[in-house]
Amino acid sequence: MNLADYLLRRRRLVDGALKRWIPAENEFPPQVHKAMHYSLFAGGKRLRPILTLAAAEAAGGRTRDALPLACSFELIHTYSLIHDDLPSMDDDDLRRGKPTSHKVFGEAVAILAGDALLTEAFLLASRPDLMKGVPPRRRIQALWVLARAAGSLGMVGGQTVDILTQGQPVDAGTLEYIHTRKTGALIAASVAVGAVIGGAGLRSFKNLSAYGEKLGLAFQIIDDLLDEEGDEKKLGKAVRKDHSKGKATYPALYGIPESRRKAGRLIEEALARLKSFDRRANPLREIARFILERTS
Amino acid sequence: MNLADYLLRRRRLVDGALKRWIPAENEFPPQVHKAMHYSLFAGGKRLRPILTLAAAEAAGGRTRDALPLACSFELIHTYSLIHDDLPSMDDDDLRRGKPTSHKVFGEAVAILAGDALLTEAFLLASRPDLMKGVPPRRRIQALWVLARAAGSLGMVGGQTVDILTQGQPVDAGTLEYIHTRKTGALIAASVAVGAVIGGAGLRSFKNLSAYGEKLGLAFQIIDDLLDEEGDEKKLGKAVRKDHSKGKATYPALYGIPESRRKAGRLIEEALARLKSFDRRANPLREIARFILERTS
Repeated sequence: MNLADYLLRRRRLVDGALKRWIPAENEFPPQVHKAMHYSLFAGGKRLRPILTLAAAEAAGGRTRDALPLACSFELIHTYSLIHDDLPSMDDDDLRRGKPTSHKVFGEAVAILAGDALLTEAFLLASRPDLMKGVPPRRRIQALWVLARAAGSLGMVGGQTVDILTQGQPVDAGTLEYIHTRKTGALIAASVAVGAVIGGAGLRSFKNLSAYGEKLGLAFQIIDDLLDEEGDEKKLGKAVRKDHSKGKATYPALYGIPESRRKAGRLIEEALARLKSFDRRANPLREIARFILERTS
Repeated sequence: MNLADYLLRRRRLVDGALKRWIPAENEFPPQVHKAMHYSLFAGGKRLRPILTLAAAEAAGGRTRDALPLACSFELIHTYSLIHDDLPSMDDDDLRRGKPTSHKVFGEAVAILAGDALLTEAFLLASRPDLMKGVPPRRRIQALWVLARAAGSLGMVGGQTVDILTQGQPVDAGTLEYIHTRKTGALIAASVAVGAVIGGAGLRSFKNLSAYGEKLGLAFQIIDDLLDEEGDEKKLGKAVRKDHSKGKATYPALYGIPESRRKAGRLIEEALARLKSFDRRANPLREIARFILERTS
């Protein structure tokens, strides 16, 4: 398979669905809808929704059935970026090469746009006119996996610890907590939800979930490495930003070579979990390799 | 029936459920969980969850089945208060006679606690170990009604317009938009969701929904009147606050007597919608009368 081509087609599928399903930019009140669209269509890679679709496929399900929940992950990811960038949080002016939401729309509207995107994620996942082929019980389980990953024991918990430890030395346990929760939890859940919607049995569900967890942590370690070594232009954001903020990162704690080895090991472990799957898991395999080699 | 006694028992039921179902205060990371508990157990009247329970009862359902979604409404209501109080929004220092969340925990943790409470609402509503007696299809419909009321076309939309029109003269249409969305949408949905969970047929559902909409708008008009005329001690917050902020209110636009008449008419209309219901709708009837007469 040609991964670049696959990713492009999937990204278009997700972008089209998001445009169709969330309120239009000029819907009243336009300020909050413009802010939602601004961040949602700022050129994201759509990694999380693509993982949901690929996991549903690997589990033997249909892409179409997984599309609403795939979009929910992008909505939650986008809300988390808007809130993380706020002055009282990471205080960032740039995101993907563009001014952050609060710089463009002001803090109040940025907070409200984030709140709305988070709510929209659950609205989309529970729309009665979508996902008619999926048993309702499965939809509820998927909603639960999504909410758990996004909440105070998942992503919000990770962000809380990240913010509160800024500028302080953190130990390996705390760093792993931040990374597995702040980024890892949502990536892992995007795979698990795809597995649920795709109708995976218990063993397949466990393997796909484990794949997602390894992938999520590897993704964040690579992110740390890119912040340390990456190219500002390719990344569309300032590099060595974590460093200058005194943020805990893998390279800071373990050094660059050991961090790269750790990421490599995690990807190997993720791939091992896909052994029993047929060629319908090829997109998940290719994505894992791609994440290890990405430069932006 | 003795309404005060009914409300007390229901409030205890809701408080007990919230304590049992949301993460404990000392759960890691404690900062965000402490902030969630601080606002959630600050002495709220639990109006929205009580309406959900009473509507489920009126529709012929069981209170127990409606309890998780009833709690979801309180979680969303609480998150909205935390975010509304933020410096970039209403910038309030006091809420229910206590310092607001950002005053106690800082802005970052207050934003995160709000995000977590919103997420927790959907987590609770989709837990596989709860609501086993409710058909999954009905649960999904209830989730959808909840999410729609809370999102950018509901509560968040109302708050957006409220914030962006502060200090400006607003017309009657804009004021009605703010009031029906910012407070009204969630109150109306709390009744509609109870009806769904209680298994209401289409006609009952429509009547209960209309009751909720009238009640929600009446509640906000009374709130405006209390801000204008109320007793600071009883309310636990500063009065004439809307006034000093140049906020749009009913008394400001229509005067006090006409606002009071309008609230009375809405309550009459709400009660008329309950005509075809038996005595199981008595709590809803009593609550409607109580809302018109409340002084805090």
